[in-house]
Amino acid sequence: MTSTDPITNLSTLIRCPSVTPAEGGALAALEAMLTPLGFTVDRVVAKDTGTPDIENLYARLGSNGPHLMFAGHTDVVPVGDEAAWTHPPFSATIAGGEMYGRGAVDMKGGIACFVAAVARHVEKHGAPKGSISFLITGDEEGPAINGTVKLLQWAAAKGERWDACLVGEPTNPDELGDMIKIGRRGSLSGRITVHGVQGHAAYPHLADNPVRGILKLTEALMDPPFDTGTESFQPSNLEVTTIDVGNPAVNVIPAKAIASFNIRFNDNWTAESLMAEIVARLDHAAASDKLRPDRAPVRYDIVWNERPSHVFLTRNNALIDSLSGAVEAVVGRQPKLSTTGGTSDARFIKDYCPVVEFGLVGQTMHMVDERVAVADLETLTGIYETFIARWFGHAAA
Amino acid sequence: MTSTDPITNLSTLIRCPSVTPAEGGALAALEAMLTPLGFTVDRVVAKDTGTPDIENLYARLGSNGPHLMFAGHTDVVPVGDEAAWTHPPFSATIAGGEMYGRGAVDMKGGIACFVAAVARHVEKHGAPKGSISFLITGDEEGPAINGTVKLLQWAAAKGERWDACLVGEPTNPDELGDMIKIGRRGSLSGRITVHGVQGHAAYPHLADNPVRGILKLTEALMDPPFDTGTESFQPSNLEVTTIDVGNPAVNVIPAKAIASFNIRFNDNWTAESLMAEIVARLDHAAASDKLRPDRAPVRYDIVWNERPSHVFLTRNNALIDSLSGAVEAVVGRQPKLSTTGGTSDARFIKDYCPVVEFGLVGQTMHMVDERVAVADLETLTGIYETFIARWFGHAAA
Repeated sequence: MTSTDPITNLSTLIRCPSVTPAEGGALAALEAMLTPLGFTVDRVVAKDTGTPDIENLYARLGSNGPHLMFAGHTDVVPVGDEAAWTHPPFSATIAGGEMYGRGAVDMKGGIACFVAAVARHVEKHGAPKGSISFLITGDEEGPAINGTVKLLQWAAAKGERWDACLVGEPTNPDELGDMIKIGRRGSLSGRITVHGVQGHAAYPHLADNPVRGILKLTEALMDPPFDTGTESFQPSNLEVTTIDVGNPAVNVIPAKAIASFNIRFNDNWTAESLMAEIVARLDHAAASDKLRPDRAPVRYDIVWNERPSHVFLTRNNALIDSLSGAVEAVVGRQPKLSTTGGTSDARFIKDYCPVVEFGLVGQTMHMVDERVAVADLETLTGIYETFIARWFGHAAA
Repeated sequence: MTSTDPITNLSTLIRCPSVTPAEGGALAALEAMLTPLGFTVDRVVAKDTGTPDIENLYARLGSNGPHLMFAGHTDVVPVGDEAAWTHPPFSATIAGGEMYGRGAVDMKGGIACFVAAVARHVEKHGAPKGSISFLITGDEEGPAINGTVKLLQWAAAKGERWDACLVGEPTNPDELGDMIKIGRRGSLSGRITVHGVQGHAAYPHLADNPVRGILKLTEALMDPPFDTGTESFQPSNLEVTTIDVGNPAVNVIPAKAIASFNIRFNDNWTAESLMAEIVARLDHAAASDKLRPDRAPVRYDIVWNERPSHVFLTRNNALIDSLSGAVEAVVGRQPKLSTTGGTSDARFIKDYCPVVEFGLVGQTMHMVDERVAVADLETLTGIYETFIARWFGHAAA
């Protein structure tokens, strides 16, 4: 197979139903693309109690430095309402100049383009003046326990060291070339449970409706905003991602209500200072009910989900200039250096080497009808190929 | 058998496991009590698509007016955790002066006492100066589709007319004689769905979180209160009985959120005026978001559950005075005339004749260890017997 064509590469990957945590054939397909290019490929299964086993892939071409890593993931989020898709989510159908499929932009597309860029580089210049590696996980959209973190540990333990990393997440808001990410906000999630007293809807004075409490507490998390942003970062933002009571009987007041939230926070905060702020808001809201001043405080507990991810900012001129210059050379304008958007596995890689992120246009990620402009695949491949040449030029200089 | 003893009558009825919708032998047992007293008994099976067939009973003694109806139900709610009962729920065990059993107070006890009261009346005075009938359903604790509504229609179709009705539901909060119910609040339920746009929690501007909308809308339903009560009724009260999003992924903004609510409303409102008020509140709340003024209005729809039950108030002096006077004559104090609490089948009977409710003490209804003080059975029988004599005296005068 010729892996110089990003469209072929991507359609192969999309047809693998690798909904997290399933490998779905995606890493096998990637291995089949990389081996003919001369990569040594390792498939690494990571395990942990309470989480599914995850397949990951590490591949290296070359044995000397400088060493450039491309990082990403082949797992994808669930398709959502499959019937609402214009084209089946694992069909890679091309229509109207766009390829449809779950993972098209997040981020099988980025992988497909980087594979093509390396293939073209090798075709034109032979082996790189150093090493290129792929660090690809199947656990970026899931709990992220058995993915990039363990793969980095595994590789570092066998002596791997990297000089720079490019993560291929979709970073562009509107058009290819808009934005390089040079840092990320932190992320913190929690689950609040409000405990009430079950009873009959006609006798509310004998019950205590926890829905009232969960509304008060979640509102306190949403208003006022946590901050107005910092020099390098946009404002911290909290979303209540679910509220669940699960009471089917309309004449029954339920016993408890549960809400989950996620906050993306900037360098105004550490995870610890933010947890303290959130608990202070909840305690304050729980203490009073203007509608029912005779009521006891809302009884709630909070559980913090997993480990928070910490905020970070990359300052490495060789890496940032190579990438920014490649974007400008191919699309004719300078990308914005940004710290907006979600976390990515860059938050783990930052502890090993400087890391930046650049990929496709993210507008349809996680949505029904996720899709990518076919022309963008060719353009991104060109940018990646130019970046590889420039970075090795920089790094070798 | 002698049906003048309410304790015997009740133990016979409790031993019939008539968990809704099962007849469980309870109506057969009641027929066996009424036939020797001279009642003509009809057993009426009602059917409807999507609901279980239900057995009901209609029995009449006498053929002239005035005509007094006693209404109630022999079906009972499930026993719940049977192992938690002190005595088996269908054993009618007497211990510590109390008879244990599912339905002891709700409301086989009321039926047992009214049967005994009629038997004593007939024993002392012969046939009543008019007619007495029993309208007993097996579908009060279930969907209430194949019960009182259809039995009333069936009886009315064959020419039955009534001058007054007593429903034997447990109306007393603490002690026998506390409370007669002379009306009931209405009940209206609805389900609101807020439609958002699914997306990634880190890119809230590309999504539209419906949790925000459901919070705004439900809050608008809870605040301000709908009214402060009326001369005969307590304030209308709305409970949000569930909110459900069902989004398991903390990094995903969900596509929709659903909330259900139930409102118990007083005679400030009709079901129609209340629906209009609710929609006005929702529309107003949907139109603006102080946190995000750039946002389009919240997109929602509302579905009203089933038929609402209408508020009613009985103003019939002959009926109320006969019952209130009977209570005072037997227990020595005046019962409160109340409109509090949940709905009952009185909401259907009110369309045919004036209706009031009086029965046992309701504290253990629907609970594990439902039970009745044996002494209360004798007292209630005395009240019912006195009421029958007074009502026929009033009505004949």
